[in-house]
Amino acid sequence: MISWNNLDKLTAYKKLQSLKGSVELRDAMAGKSGKDRVAKYSIPMGGGLCYNFAAKAVNDEILSALKELAEEAQLAEKFSALYNGEVINTGEKRMVLHHLTRGQLGGDVIADGVNKRAFYTAEQKKAADFARQVHEGKITNAAGEKFTTVVQIGIGGSDLGPRAMYLALENWAKKNSCFHMDARFISNVDPDDAVSVLGSVDVSRTLFVLVSKSGTTLETLTNESFVKDALRKAGLDPANHMVAVTSETSPLASSDEYLQAFFMDDYIGGRYSSTSCVGGVVLSLAFGPEVFARFLAGAAEEDKLAADPDICRNPAMLDALIGVYERNILGMPATAVLPYSQALSRFPAHLQQLDMESNGKSVNRFGDKVDYVTGPVIFGEPGTNGQHSFYQLLHQGTDIIPLQFVGFRFSQAETDVNIQDSTSQQKLCANVAAQIMAFACGKDDENPNKSFAGNRPSSIIIGKQLTPEALGALLSHFENKVMFQGFVWNLNSFDQEGVQLGKVLAKRVLKHDTDGALRAFSDLLGI
Amino acid sequence: MISWNNLDKLTAYKKLQSLKGSVELRDAMAGKSGKDRVAKYSIPMGGGLCYNFAAKAVNDEILSALKELAEEAQLAEKFSALYNGEVINTGEKRMVLHHLTRGQLGGDVIADGVNKRAFYTAEQKKAADFARQVHEGKITNAAGEKFTTVVQIGIGGSDLGPRAMYLALENWAKKNSCFHMDARFISNVDPDDAVSVLGSVDVSRTLFVLVSKSGTTLETLTNESFVKDALRKAGLDPANHMVAVTSETSPLASSDEYLQAFFMDDYIGGRYSSTSCVGGVVLSLAFGPEVFARFLAGAAEEDKLAADPDICRNPAMLDALIGVYERNILGMPATAVLPYSQALSRFPAHLQQLDMESNGKSVNRFGDKVDYVTGPVIFGEPGTNGQHSFYQLLHQGTDIIPLQFVGFRFSQAETDVNIQDSTSQQKLCANVAAQIMAFACGKDDENPNKSFAGNRPSSIIIGKQLTPEALGALLSHFENKVMFQGFVWNLNSFDQEGVQLGKVLAKRVLKHDTDGALRAFSDLLGI
Repeated sequence: MISWNNLDKLTAYKKLQSLKGSVELRDAMAGKSGKDRVAKYSIPMGGGLCYNFAAKAVNDEILSALKELAEEAQLAEKFSALYNGEVINTGEKRMVLHHLTRGQLGGDVIADGVNKRAFYTAEQKKAADFARQVHEGKITNAAGEKFTTVVQIGIGGSDLGPRAMYLALENWAKKNSCFHMDARFISNVDPDDAVSVLGSVDVSRTLFVLVSKSGTTLETLTNESFVKDALRKAGLDPANHMVAVTSETSPLASSDEYLQAFFMDDYIGGRYSSTSCVGGVVLSLAFGPEVFARFLAGAAEEDKLAADPDICRNPAMLDALIGVYERNILGMPATAVLPYSQALSRFPAHLQQLDMESNGKSVNRFGDKVDYVTGPVIFGEPGTNGQHSFYQLLHQGTDIIPLQFVGFRFSQAETDVNIQDSTSQQKLCANVAAQIMAFACGKDDENPNKSFAGNRPSSIIIGKQLTPEALGALLSHFENKVMFQGFVWNLNSFDQEGVQLGKVLAKRVLKHDTDGALRAFSDLLGI
Repeated sequence: MISWNNLDKLTAYKKLQSLKGSVELRDAMAGKSGKDRVAKYSIPMGGGLCYNFAAKAVNDEILSALKELAEEAQLAEKFSALYNGEVINTGEKRMVLHHLTRGQLGGDVIADGVNKRAFYTAEQKKAADFARQVHEGKITNAAGEKFTTVVQIGIGGSDLGPRAMYLALENWAKKNSCFHMDARFISNVDPDDAVSVLGSVDVSRTLFVLVSKSGTTLETLTNESFVKDALRKAGLDPANHMVAVTSETSPLASSDEYLQAFFMDDYIGGRYSSTSCVGGVVLSLAFGPEVFARFLAGAAEEDKLAADPDICRNPAMLDALIGVYERNILGMPATAVLPYSQALSRFPAHLQQLDMESNGKSVNRFGDKVDYVTGPVIFGEPGTNGQHSFYQLLHQGTDIIPLQFVGFRFSQAETDVNIQDSTSQQKLCANVAAQIMAFACGKDDENPNKSFAGNRPSSIIIGKQLTPEALGALLSHFENKVMFQGFVWNLNSFDQEGVQLGKVLAKRVLKHDTDGALRAFSDLLGI
């Protein structure tokens, strides 16, 4: 029997409070003790990755308390309930089924009279077949020419995840000869976004993927019109250039304005939809369905680990719990995501949505205000770029910000130069190793301006190379981490009521149905 | 006579503490009071912009205390000392002269026997002449073909600012017919960065701008080798394709491996260098020297306002002081930068460096540990994209994050579609107005999950259009804001000692001169 309790009602939470600050990271990571921690505090992940938390301010005692917290909060049971189809998104009275897009962890889940795993698989097959026909030249433009480019039109989860995944695999795919089509993305309602993207492609050879679950997203429908205008002005019939990804009940589903429609449903939230057709159509077109299938396999492998009740074998659960310890016990306000891989340049932006939209909430799943802090601010940029930017604050600022590093032993392109006896990739890897230690151990100096206090915790996910499997595992890891943190905080991580008020007020501005300060601001902005 | 005192020693600071929370923003922004605030709490900026702080949690009493703080902390006097050439970067014993790249606010500044304004102006003229010769086909590749693309090789301040500025004006320039060359940027030591950029350009028609003040930045020199390799493999002589931006004393300055060298000096920090040749060469090549000059004029106009001792006429100083009130009195941990303009997509990343590298420090300019928090975490993405991502946390999360909006009445391309009786640009503007009010006033609802507490402060910078002048003013505003905050916190905002330790340790890793945890992490990463 599952109980949904607030974090501050749990016995293990009080125990954790009593352990606050019991690890001096600076000492723990020094000398032989540090070396032993690197070997010991490591958990295998899917996709050939591992999660190393040696440089987190934990020890066996704190880990034991975190294990008790996991058990008391019933994290494994709650995840099991979720993947077996219980209504976990209680606010919207919906099941949460994104895991079914890449595997089957529990029993069959039937909703709306349909086996949902079968439904998602069938839609993936539709997308794969469509992509193959495009690649083979069986689906072409009216002039019989092959499509060379795919442009996704979507915003939020229909943009950030798929865009980050595309960028993550673009160079890998080019090197590994399974690159089929360039992809671009239009998201912002700012007309300069669409103008810029349309100016950079040959629209006559471009397929547009319109992504909106409801079929009513203002930005996306506006940008669709923008694109249709551009196609018509180029003498083209938009119906030959567009597909839709939407729900079966949306107005887009049965329109003859699209070559084909691919379906998702209300059980997959936007920020959890990269492994559904929201990511599947554009990624299958860009890289081929086989690459997308490998990406799903990596995510599925990681999901299996997330179902393990033992935190020592469950990297997502452990990562989640350490994050709660840092946020609620140590009082740290933000988390930086720092991938040492240029291909992951937009991965932090995806995680920003995933995490902050899921757990940036002040009431629990019953609507009661919680008396503790919940989701942190998430931000980040790739290393080594960040080192020459905001790392100054991370090293010597007055707040301590926990860090999430990601690194790979090999680059994607595997083209490199040797300067001063090392390759670029070796320099990249040397930097991430060095940063972990600089943050953990610091350095004393006579000049206080050159002193580093250390004691700044980090973890690192390490892989051989950023392959489709590794990317799938990475994506799944963070989805499940966020889910587990939501369970610990007793939040509903699967709705987003906080985005509604702004939408309502914007509509009123456009109808000129406003007064007071809102009218005054609208005047200043010329509306 | 200037005194450098810690914030918590100032009388006005104690007064501010006594005023903590005296404004209930939710009430203040409602009804007629809110309308009046929008009209009253607005200050003109340069470049046709205005700074509106109606939705900040301040009132006349708090503003009066902030004015006292500005006077007691001698903000205007300190800025005057800075632009008249005093050694404000005390840690490195250097003057701070980036304002001289765009104007002369005080007396002549002589350093190293040279009038620095004349020096910067001469270098700008060199860059302008060079760009004109490239545009006119007087400087070409060996085959006599015009260069079509410019690639900047640099990291940190040699990348983030110039890149953000290029993206900010790219579409404006295309529309206004002064667009000359496409620009790309290589920054990361990850070899996949260079491979990706080189794969997207025709190297035979590309000019490379190598930017490193010291001439020793590891990432930049490594990427230079990468590029030279690629040029040689294409049968091209690198010396025909590269220019350097560096200091006169750097090894790059007199090398015959570059078509020409353009100079900066130690008085301009990387993150303050967009208006020097670091930004000037690439932006003059991309948009023409006239556009770069307009950008400088906007920055100079804004600098003049920043020299005004009256906070009611000095938007940068007021913005800085309100930020200190939020950070130190109200205890807010981060600031989100939210431009409603896709062209400003990388402006938050630039501000992240500018702010966090300048003021992410724990010791004052004398090396004493300060007893208050300093620079906040800075993050952001363009609206409306962010609305569909992390705004959930901003509206309903447990921490209150102050917001910095930017909006323009007109788009850059001025191409638009009319859907549901409004253009895209009107929708964009309606959204930013709506968000300010949603954050400030919130909304009660029977369902606590749909309730918005409000009281979330924001300001907005509003302009007609993102022109070169507006962009220059925007850049200068934030540079000066960060400088004033550094004065208030009694920090040296112009060094970055926090980036050194990681560099030292990375070198040791590459030399295999490590043991303990650092060796263990290096092993995991295959170095």
